[in-house]
Amino acid sequence: MSKQHLIVFDTTLRDGEQSPGASMTKDEKVRIALMLEKMRVDVIEAGFAIASEGDFQAVKAVAEAVKDSTICSLSRAIEADISRAAEAIKPANSGRIHTFIATSPIHMKYKLQMQPDEVIEQAVRAVRFARNLAADVEFSCEDAGRSEMDFLCRIVEAAIDAGARTINIPDTVGYAIPELYAEQIRTLIERVPNSDKAIFSVHCHNDLGLAVANSLAAVQAGARQVECTINGLGERAGNASLEELVMAVRTRPDVFNVETRINPVYIVPTSRLVSTITGFPVQPNKAIVGKNAFAHESGIHQDGILKHRETYEIMKAEDVGWHTNSLVLGKHSGRNAFRARLQELGINFASEQELNTAFTLFKQLADKKHEIYDEDLQALVTDTRAAAAAEYLQLVAMEVQSKTGETPLAKVVLNVEGQELKAEAQGSGPVDAVFKAIETLTKSGASLELYSVNAITSGTDSQGEVTVRLALGGRIVNGLGADTDIVIASAKAYINALNALQNHADRRHPQEADI
Amino acid sequence: MSKQHLIVFDTTLRDGEQSPGASMTKDEKVRIALMLEKMRVDVIEAGFAIASEGDFQAVKAVAEAVKDSTICSLSRAIEADISRAAEAIKPANSGRIHTFIATSPIHMKYKLQMQPDEVIEQAVRAVRFARNLAADVEFSCEDAGRSEMDFLCRIVEAAIDAGARTINIPDTVGYAIPELYAEQIRTLIERVPNSDKAIFSVHCHNDLGLAVANSLAAVQAGARQVECTINGLGERAGNASLEELVMAVRTRPDVFNVETRINPVYIVPTSRLVSTITGFPVQPNKAIVGKNAFAHESGIHQDGILKHRETYEIMKAEDVGWHTNSLVLGKHSGRNAFRARLQELGINFASEQELNTAFTLFKQLADKKHEIYDEDLQALVTDTRAAAAAEYLQLVAMEVQSKTGETPLAKVVLNVEGQELKAEAQGSGPVDAVFKAIETLTKSGASLELYSVNAITSGTDSQGEVTVRLALGGRIVNGLGADTDIVIASAKAYINALNALQNHADRRHPQEADI
Repeated sequence: MSKQHLIVFDTTLRDGEQSPGASMTKDEKVRIALMLEKMRVDVIEAGFAIASEGDFQAVKAVAEAVKDSTICSLSRAIEADISRAAEAIKPANSGRIHTFIATSPIHMKYKLQMQPDEVIEQAVRAVRFARNLAADVEFSCEDAGRSEMDFLCRIVEAAIDAGARTINIPDTVGYAIPELYAEQIRTLIERVPNSDKAIFSVHCHNDLGLAVANSLAAVQAGARQVECTINGLGERAGNASLEELVMAVRTRPDVFNVETRINPVYIVPTSRLVSTITGFPVQPNKAIVGKNAFAHESGIHQDGILKHRETYEIMKAEDVGWHTNSLVLGKHSGRNAFRARLQELGINFASEQELNTAFTLFKQLADKKHEIYDEDLQALVTDTRAAAAAEYLQLVAMEVQSKTGETPLAKVVLNVEGQELKAEAQGSGPVDAVFKAIETLTKSGASLELYSVNAITSGTDSQGEVTVRLALGGRIVNGLGADTDIVIASAKAYINALNALQNHADRRHPQEADI
Repeated sequence: MSKQHLIVFDTTLRDGEQSPGASMTKDEKVRIALMLEKMRVDVIEAGFAIASEGDFQAVKAVAEAVKDSTICSLSRAIEADISRAAEAIKPANSGRIHTFIATSPIHMKYKLQMQPDEVIEQAVRAVRFARNLAADVEFSCEDAGRSEMDFLCRIVEAAIDAGARTINIPDTVGYAIPELYAEQIRTLIERVPNSDKAIFSVHCHNDLGLAVANSLAAVQAGARQVECTINGLGERAGNASLEELVMAVRTRPDVFNVETRINPVYIVPTSRLVSTITGFPVQPNKAIVGKNAFAHESGIHQDGILKHRETYEIMKAEDVGWHTNSLVLGKHSGRNAFRARLQELGINFASEQELNTAFTLFKQLADKKHEIYDEDLQALVTDTRAAAAAEYLQLVAMEVQSKTGETPLAKVVLNVEGQELKAEAQGSGPVDAVFKAIETLTKSGASLELYSVNAITSGTDSQGEVTVRLALGGRIVNGLGADTDIVIASAKAYINALNALQNHADRRHPQEADI
């Protein structure tokens, strides 16, 4: 019997981005979306168009760039949201509107302050309105896990009648247990009279570490779409992780009667890209994409223990894109080789000028660093674009010393809105001194929420990639900076974050639903 | 009906430590074990006593320090291993020997090169031998997930007859799926005639992201011990994580008919300690212990969205030890306050001299850093002990500059086996320059496998904690260093790792079983 198709719906760019500190620029979203397309993700949820002008532009840019995946925007069950979503996905070859309303007693009472019948009416109105704007409409029952079954059956039937093609039953708060969640999905499919006219979808949160297990149990019960994210990114403890879902289904064809069309060889590169862009590290023991996930193969364990390869191995590291991190470019690589490799990574420059800037940075890097890997190129592009986007602040020069027994003094020169300004400050370390010197000029008053450095590749001449997370007035932004000098990388990251604070448009949280 | 007791068996110090790069010193193991004891873990697997002299000493030290938890050592099913395990756990108030042999056709054929009947005989001999040395014996069927049910029933029955009190059925390769794994446990308990004379235990690996779900499904099927680790540390993608298991059982008392005796308020502090000691970061979206796991509470989301607290919350952050990170000490804190706070953190110094060294470092830190948190104290102790243990190499002084457009030049002075030596080197960044200068003197030839920096607390005057992982001749070691200056912290970490390479005893991998 041939396997049924399991639709992979990636929401890294929407639910993933809602994770505090994981916000992405339009350009970063496009880069990730192009990798997801290469990986053959069926549906890419690119954002929540009404949330802000930035979100709208990002969904639109993804819809323009991606050809093979369906592009989806989230919207509350109100006309203004749905219209905006429709407008954002208009450029897509295949677009979807995803509209939702809360269906649990606790959410209806305290958040929506609506009666159950009013909620059904509003859902039906929203789905009908969306179907007038797009053929492909998904309807979600927010907090379905705590909703009453009879009510769920009524609203799902009504939404399908109104034209929803996909019905999503999320475990919004991460409270589900596999067998009970599977039972809920099975019961819904059995009891809703028109359930054969829609695909049932699941969207699980990982608060108890069960998001993947819950999703798979639901698939066994008949769900044919899984909503997931790269690295399990997402609100709170995140969503079901795409890589674990896909590899579980592939590794256990004896158990699962479905298959995805995902090409898993892009899993590790995409994981790295998402980690780089968000500044969220992947822990070494993360399944599939953690550095140690295939440690038996990495030469770390003595080969002697593997008298037979399968004794400890259920998947091959190559299958998910480990070891594809080959040395690609060096000091003598030309412009064409540089451009070609970037294109293979899904990176296209908006202008020749941007390519030139990046190539100059590449040559500078190649002078300092012997071997240039794909990760270096990703960082370099992040850096190029950060520099290009920085209208407000730019780093002109800096110096600072680390010396045992002395208090570091940093001197910085910044270009602040076109004007070159100098400052100096002491600090408890060179990074602290540099940040304080920058603050002397900018007086942002932002608080430093996170500071982390990762070597992009191994080896002592590796670039340091610094993430700085700043908070100001309830807003949180990330700044990234890469350099072979981690103190300079730190300054770049701090300035990048300050620019983000300056540019960041206010946006609405999708569950902040004051309808 | 009153709930049955679920035994929590923590193997952070054994399976967790087997994760490449996660090796711990004896002292670090004792610190973690004391936290596990406070948390009321039932059984602490402290190591694999025969693996090395270092492992033996660590198990013994844990057995001496811990009073309320059972202390366990792993051993292959051979007499030399078991005797060594028995000797190591002798100081414990309650000790356990955990012996194992592989039971899957693929392992018996390729690894053990034994016939099934020989495997049963050896298991029985091993359990009997262990029971002569300890009352509490656990027997594990390695790779039980791929073993034949008839054979498993035979060997389990024989092991129980021989005196095993606990029978562990691990999913060694992380291949299991919840419903099938539960079925395997249920069938075993039903078919093995003397199954009522033993506790059935599970030990799940997370290669497909299902370790927690598999463990919980097995509990539903009758297992009454779960083997797990803090942060899900462990080989490859790690083990089931203690925090997820414990909180799933607590959060869903309607589903699980068991309870643990864990006090969850120690979960977050223990997670941090394990992360600090191993240098393995916890990703922000890790369930329970990730920085974003309770982000709705962290003030990051507008309070306005929470019209009613339960709308998005199934657990309370305080319950698992978030927000207990209070400001404890400052510049004017005295020696007694310092010592008392360390004792509350489970840290006791071996000598007054060590306390004095730590207190001096504390005063130095308090001069540079306004507020001293528990995390700072943990780092300071790590640092004190690293300095005390450093027989081979010590940092005397260093200086290096970061300046845009210039190649950094580092000057270092090291004490190498009692002799002060100077060196200088250029590098692609200040850290690279410092590492190269150190290499000029030590000529270790080690390769840098990982370099990461985390700010220990937030705020710009936070200490940087640097992890350096070095590989040399198939061995992998971690070095840690903390300082308000991240370049100096990097130098300390590099030197700490070089000392570890120098001191590290060769050890055997528990599954490298050439019996």
